Amino acid sequence: MDLTRLSLEQLSGGLRRGEWSAADLARCCEENHRQRESTLRAYKTWNGEGAAATASLADQLLARGVDLGPLMGLPVSVKDLYAVRGLPTFAGSAASLGPDWERPGPLMAGLERQMAPVMGKTHTVEFAFGGIGMNAHWGTPRNPWKAEEHRIPGGSSSGAGVSLAQGSAVLALGTDTAGSVRIPASVTGQAGLKPTHGRWPLEGIVPLSPSLDTPGILARSVEDLAFGFRAIEGILGRASAPIVVPAAMSSLRLGRADVFFLDEADPAIVEVYERAMSRLAVLGASVRGVELPGCDEAYSIFRQGGLAASELCAFLKAELPGRMERLDPVVRLRVEGAESLSSVDYLLRVRALREAARRALPVFDMADVLATPTVAITPPRLDAIQDPEAYRRANMMVLRNTSMANLLGLCALTLPIGLDAQGMPVGLQLMAPPGAEERLLAAALLIESHLGKPLDILGSPYFPQ
Amino acid sequence: MDLTRLSLEQLSGGLRRGEWSAADLARCCEENHRQRESTLRAYKTWNGEGAAATASLADQLLARGVDLGPLMGLPVSVKDLYAVRGLPTFAGSAASLGPDWERPGPLMAGLERQMAPVMGKTHTVEFAFGGIGMNAHWGTPRNPWKAEEHRIPGGSSSGAGVSLAQGSAVLALGTDTAGSVRIPASVTGQAGLKPTHGRWPLEGIVPLSPSLDTPGILARSVEDLAFGFRAIEGILGRASAPIVVPAAMSSLRLGRADVFFLDEADPAIVEVYERAMSRLAVLGASVRGVELPGCDEAYSIFRQGGLAASELCAFLKAELPGRMERLDPVVRLRVEGAESLSSVDYLLRVRALREAARRALPVFDMADVLATPTVAITPPRLDAIQDPEAYRRANMMVLRNTSMANLLGLCALTLPIGLDAQGMPVGLQLMAPPGAEERLLAAALLIESHLGKPLDILGSPYFPQ
Repeated sequence: MDLTRLSLEQLSGGLRRGEWSAADLARCCEENHRQRESTLRAYKTWNGEGAAATASLADQLLARGVDLGPLMGLPVSVKDLYAVRGLPTFAGSAASLGPDWERPGPLMAGLERQMAPVMGKTHTVEFAFGGIGMNAHWGTPRNPWKAEEHRIPGGSSSGAGVSLAQGSAVLALGTDTAGSVRIPASVTGQAGLKPTHGRWPLEGIVPLSPSLDTPGILARSVEDLAFGFRAIEGILGRASAPIVVPAAMSSLRLGRADVFFLDEADPAIVEVYERAMSRLAVLGASVRGVELPGCDEAYSIFRQGGLAASELCAFLKAELPGRMERLDPVVRLRVEGAESLSSVDYLLRVRALREAARRALPVFDMADVLATPTVAITPPRLDAIQDPEAYRRANMMVLRNTSMANLLGLCALTLPIGLDAQGMPVGLQLMAPPGAEERLLAAALLIESHLGKPLDILGSPYFPQ
Repeated sequence: MDLTRLSLEQLSGGLRRGEWSAADLARCCEENHRQRESTLRAYKTWNGEGAAATASLADQLLARGVDLGPLMGLPVSVKDLYAVRGLPTFAGSAASLGPDWERPGPLMAGLERQMAPVMGKTHTVEFAFGGIGMNAHWGTPRNPWKAEEHRIPGGSSSGAGVSLAQGSAVLALGTDTAGSVRIPASVTGQAGLKPTHGRWPLEGIVPLSPSLDTPGILARSVEDLAFGFRAIEGILGRASAPIVVPAAMSSLRLGRADVFFLDEADPAIVEVYERAMSRLAVLGASVRGVELPGCDEAYSIFRQGGLAASELCAFLKAELPGRMERLDPVVRLRVEGAESLSSVDYLLRVRALREAARRALPVFDMADVLATPTVAITPPRLDAIQDPEAYRRANMMVLRNTSMANLLGLCALTLPIGLDAQGMPVGLQLMAPPGAEERLLAAALLIESHLGKPLDILGSPYFPQ
């Protein structure tokens, strides 16, 4: 039996009841990896042996009644921006960043203390600077859906969604600056959470744009996402509020933010989204159209380059001298372009984003959460975006809907709601006010409980529906 | 009797015991202002009538047993960067900033709720951008010490120290980005406190450089400074730690930071400083030489212009369009210069300052507080710094010692320790780690209790020693 088809709740329960061991689980991931990795290429660094050792130690402890916490024995994949003890960090670049980047920050150290086996470090766009998932140094992981077409895996956490679809991990750590957790989750049929900026610590994670970066998680369902969220909040010693799922769909006020978010969206995406919205309305949800103020101002800043290039450039110059020269020339051009943005214009962007965020908030007087398609276009085939202009356009469209939560200071998640006309997964993005992760997850759990789990809705590239 | 010679403790006690009224106190300030303002020019906007009305209302409330808090009935002066209900804010510029800047932030609103009469709004350098105290639009207040020589009043809170020396207020609100509270306090013979960045809110105060700006207070003694600090912490609803003054000088570990802070200092300043240090050592304090790490890096960034010009420029462009053109050409040149600083170089400065601050902290393992002269040179005569190069040099030297607390994230205060060879007041700067205001004030109270109150040490320009 492929244990990776079970939920985190089931897995952790079964571990403690002795129905299976952490070693069984790690072996299952190892086997799935062995079978599928040569096609998919999710991992920069595979850590099968290390994970097996951790799993075996976790089993010995569990046998003695030592329970280190909810993630104990659960195989995770980690985006190769996180410092992990004993594994090099490349951050998608040509060479390892050295031993400084093997000292885990509080989030990763907490996972290590709970003895969650780290199956490996997943591929990322170079320094996470892009939403498609391409990497000139290490190749682009293959989206497992219609793998033969090599559609994009989404980025920048390009290996994270693939690792879950592959069955080589049951929870994936990513990071999200403009959608880098939600995009790969959405296009590979997973759930993904970007918490509010500042809620989870960034120490020990290679930065892209510290003004907007957040750690985040990808999971195989919203239920698992909530499990992971609670576990990490516990690790960080946060007294998070309980996640109270409303008893009835009728108590959910959903804001449809069609203006802006559906502009130029693929009709096939809109169709799946409309179907889900109608279904939720039929089930009793109060669905109303709303406009999210501040979008246009924020997006105009984003299109001009936002804050990321300047912040990444300063990081590289200060912390990794000599690495600028080794960047993929395409990335380098964008990073060095920041030199021509003046300090005053940078600060004007920061101010304008803060103002847009302030203007956005009142929308949540009218809705508990906002709903949009997570990604407005079907994930393109890699061969269709080789041309720089086609790449630029696709990158912008892929990032557009998710970037708003970052730019406007919100928390957000994605959950799968169906397959589009091309047979590719479509995600529903939900957004909530800063710090309202519990509300966000409660709404998503309610929706998932009515629309069904991803495996039921989508099937799997490996286990057809 | 001139009530403004009494301490805040005495004044507030006497008010409640009916020994004098708030109206008496406001009248006393009014009279001192009437006699001395034509020479000193401390105020941009005098509010004698408004203050008298507040005082009279405070008296009526006190008579009914309504006690609104420690600052009730105590006349304050307010730097003309703070929004105050009903009084225009010029921020040292050519024209009022309009009604948006008459809406007080939490600090000022708290003073208004306690019914502290606002005697007026004191002069400031234009947008607080300078340490000397000069203002091309409204003139430069006259330092009351040797008023006939027109020595600089210190800036940017240029009217704040003068207002206290003048006897037209008993507590003064200022702001401090690189020394703008401590410099005017020091050169006019007052005490002044710059809290840790972020401890007191900046809302309702015209910004210079929000990365480093702090509100601050000037008072006629450390005892009054502590009184004002506690009152404002109460207003802000902060649960500040008690200020525990050590019983004996022997439990005070003073770090003498002579390296850097005494470089090129006026011998007359060093002499007064040495005398105070020796005296404290004789009294039993443990005095040892220390070096404050990070100074050189921080100062080198400061000398290149730091963060202020970029942040002020962005504020002016975003919030006060059209005002750039009306700046004093000298100020304008410095502000617009920020356009040529790139976003990357700005962010590299932010990073380097954060790193310098990190390196500075361990010095406090060796000393409870660090001591330096507050200002390394005797306040120059205004006519000696008319030449731009002489101004630039004087401005840098005046700001150098105080700027370190801002740049390295510390809290700091100044207290008077004597008159120099020219008969001008000399201040002792004490610095403590971020958030250690209580420790800082306790050390200063201990020192003041041994060395004497400012009036005993210096006398006054109006009541000779």
